[in-house]
Amino acid sequence: MNDSAGNTRLVTFLTDFGHSGGGYVAACEATIALITPSVRVIHVAHEIGVGDVAWGSLVLSRVAPLCPPCVHLAVVDPGVGTERRPIVLTAGRGDHLVGPDNGLLVAAAESLGGIEQTWLIDIMRLRGKAGLGSDKVSATFHGRDVFAPTAALLASGVAAEEIGIPFDKQSLVRLKEPIMEVAVDSVVAEVIEVDRFGNVGLAARFDDCTLQGTRVVVEVVGESLPEWEARVVETFGQLRSGELGVYRDSWGQLALALNGASAAQLLSVSRGSLVRITCRDAA
Amino acid sequence: MNDSAGNTRLVTFLTDFGHSGGGYVAACEATIALITPSVRVIHVAHEIGVGDVAWGSLVLSRVAPLCPPCVHLAVVDPGVGTERRPIVLTAGRGDHLVGPDNGLLVAAAESLGGIEQTWLIDIMRLRGKAGLGSDKVSATFHGRDVFAPTAALLASGVAAEEIGIPFDKQSLVRLKEPIMEVAVDSVVAEVIEVDRFGNVGLAARFDDCTLQGTRVVVEVVGESLPEWEARVVETFGQLRSGELGVYRDSWGQLALALNGASAAQLLSVSRGSLVRITCRDAA
Amino acid sequence: MNDSAGNTRLVTFLTDFGHSGGGYVAACEATIALITPSVRVIHVAHEIGVGDVAWGSLVLSRVAPLCPPCVHLAVVDPGVGTERRPIVLTAGRGDHLVGPDNGLLVAAAESLGGIEQTWLIDIMRLRGKAGLGSDKVSATFHGRDVFAPTAALLASGVAAEEIGIPFDKQSLVRLKEPIMEVAVDSVVAEVIEVDRFGNVGLAARFDDCTLQGTRVVVEVVGESLPEWEARVVETFGQLRSGELGVYRDSWGQLALALNGASAAQLLSVSRGSLVRITCRDAA
Repeated sequence: MNDSAGNTRLVTFLTDFGHSGGGYVAACEATIALITPSVRVIHVAHEIGVGDVAWGSLVLSRVAPLCPPCVHLAVVDPGVGTERRPIVLTAGRGDHLVGPDNGLLVAAAESLGGIEQTWLIDIMRLRGKAGLGSDKVSATFHGRDVFAPTAALLASGVAAEEIGIPFDKQSLVRLKEPIMEVAVDSVVAEVIEVDRFGNVGLAARFDDCTLQGTRVVVEVVGESLPEWEARVVETFGQLRSGELGVYRDSWGQLALALNGASAAQLLSVSRGSLVRITCRDAA
Repeated sequence: MNDSAGNTRLVTFLTDFGHSGGGYVAACEATIALITPSVRVIHVAHEIGVGDVAWGSLVLSRVAPLCPPCVHLAVVDPGVGTERRPIVLTAGRGDHLVGPDNGLLVAAAESLGGIEQTWLIDIMRLRGKAGLGSDKVSATFHGRDVFAPTAALLASGVAAEEIGIPFDKQSLVRLKEPIMEVAVDSVVAEVIEVDRFGNVGLAARFDDCTLQGTRVVVEVVGESLPEWEARVVETFGQLRSGELGVYRDSWGQLALALNGASAAQLLSVSRGSLVRITCRDAA
Repeated sequence: MNDSAGNTRLVTFLTDFGHSGGGYVAACEATIALITPSVRVIHVAHEIGVGDVAWGSLVLSRVAPLCPPCVHLAVVDPGVGTERRPIVLTAGRGDHLVGPDNGLLVAAAESLGGIEQTWLIDIMRLRGKAGLGSDKVSATFHGRDVFAPTAALLASGVAAEEIGIPFDKQSLVRLKEPIMEVAVDSVVAEVIEVDRFGNVGLAARFDDCTLQGTRVVVEVVGESLPEWEARVVETFGQLRSGELGVYRDSWGQLALALNGASAAQLLSVSRGSLVRITCRDAA
């Protein structure tokens, strides 16, 4: 479990492979265990929507900074086998991030102190170093064949320069920022999360919004739906049954909830919907 | 992995966060790894129905006694951020249980030799001891901000009195017992479980019931459904296709099953339904 | 984590228990941790379809050879409690496989260098050796009561002959092979996998098929569905939107995919469907 300096060798692991699949997650974990038996894996999420790079990016950027400095392996990779680059990023805090160059790793690296170095994985060199056949790289499962071996080697203390070639970080693929407009008495923001409880996370930071008073109006932009009166609260238990609440969620985002029911269902919103919140007290 | 006495540091972890969510389970596991890197986590269940404290309580009470003495972290917490207390229980066998005071931990503590001590978590003291900012406690995610750090510290050998304040165990919140009436020739019992195979677990212990003979009649109380003839068996393979079986399930409960099909679907029951079983041979 | 020789004690674990269930997976993992605290568990898959021994067998045979030599615990066990034998297989590479004698373990053992020895688990001897009560074996949950303790003991270095009785490997239950007919210009093969991305894996090995040229025709056998023109490609990114691709999947199987959509949905196929692929260039 520990390297010679006594540090735990930890790899976090996020994919869109799902749990019902044919052992794809386990194939990667087995590969890591083969190369670096002492690594411990924390499974961040594997039910990321198929190809939903933006959602994977958000989840990773939340969980990564909670870990001690370690290796973060993330595979949401609709472009597998094409020209998209397999990469390693190092971040200010000392973490490594491993995955496809499609924007998935950037927000997490920024949450870990910012991107320091960017490396293109040299697949042949990697495979040799990991003791794997260089002829056995599939065109469709780089999670197992490229990214997991990379994470395993980095976790074992191999330096990124031994398996990668530096490239210009300006050329990194970045995701489009979600829509978010904060005015004095109102906010328009994209839905970035609907959790299992039906709570609706928005693209705006709660503390950036100046929701004067506690009474607000919530509308879904572009839908001929009613407006909802809502109240700014701190936690679900402060809401009466059926009352819509606006709150600072546990990640610091502006968010909407009902007490014991689904706000997402009430509002008919999902990731990508646009919501406007207007202060009523200010009107 | 081991403390100075050579014991494994194990934390079991149960929530209603689900696997599809935005990294909530991993956020807790990362927090534990940050505070006590050598802890090993056994994931008990994370697909507990949203806010279904009774079901979480039952699952935990089954799995906990199978583990070596350790720390059990459980978060099914619809009252997060309200007056409900964050607590630690110690049990007769030497285990610690960490979670909200809403009944979730009681049955497990009883299955581990009975409740010995009860502690209210002192959140400020906890956060300081864990090296976390005391200003960073969210109102809606005590799993990450309160309970996981508590479990991590207890697993590392910190004593409960260093982070908690004793309170009267009589004041613990307890769940309502499920309905169960056992007579000589019949049983009425609440459905406490429907498993993936459609097997129906009932609130009565099999060995407490005196089902004379092997032929019985099963009815769903309060429904104008037909009665079903059933047979008392030991395992699924003893049932003919379509035949309903009554058996002692692997937890010792009275239970109903079909061979290779769903008894729950046949009977149209779910958790909370009431079932009556009457001995036919005795009639 | 390591035995006296410095080897990691690894157990892989596959079931059809599901993640929503009442702690069945965790009950087994807890039992392993109780008997052999230093074991590390890799979860291969727990969402195998209820009783789908063939699918469990395939997934295990893929993941097992990626691991270092270790103990593979697999429980898809519709015959639990009947005459079906609880067994241990040893494979050429040095792995142990533990589970029911219903065909589940055979393909994996073959992927690990072939079946070497076959042992019938002596349940009473096992329970004694594991320090568990011999009267506590349920009739319906041998995962917890028989197979997990067996895996734990084997992982701790106990020899198979200490808990099992050798039997003739000719008497092993084997699964029916999936349908597969390869001709010069065409292939008929059973669908053996539909993954989360809708990719369709077929029973034929890609390299055994002689698909001349890159243009082929795909039909579902026995269905009055249209034919689809398809193209032989290496990866999803080479496909135009809506174009059906035939490719060598990451396990070496002949497979079908769309780029960013579900081939299984387009073709209306699931596991067990029969697909014919004919070379068009050859016509």
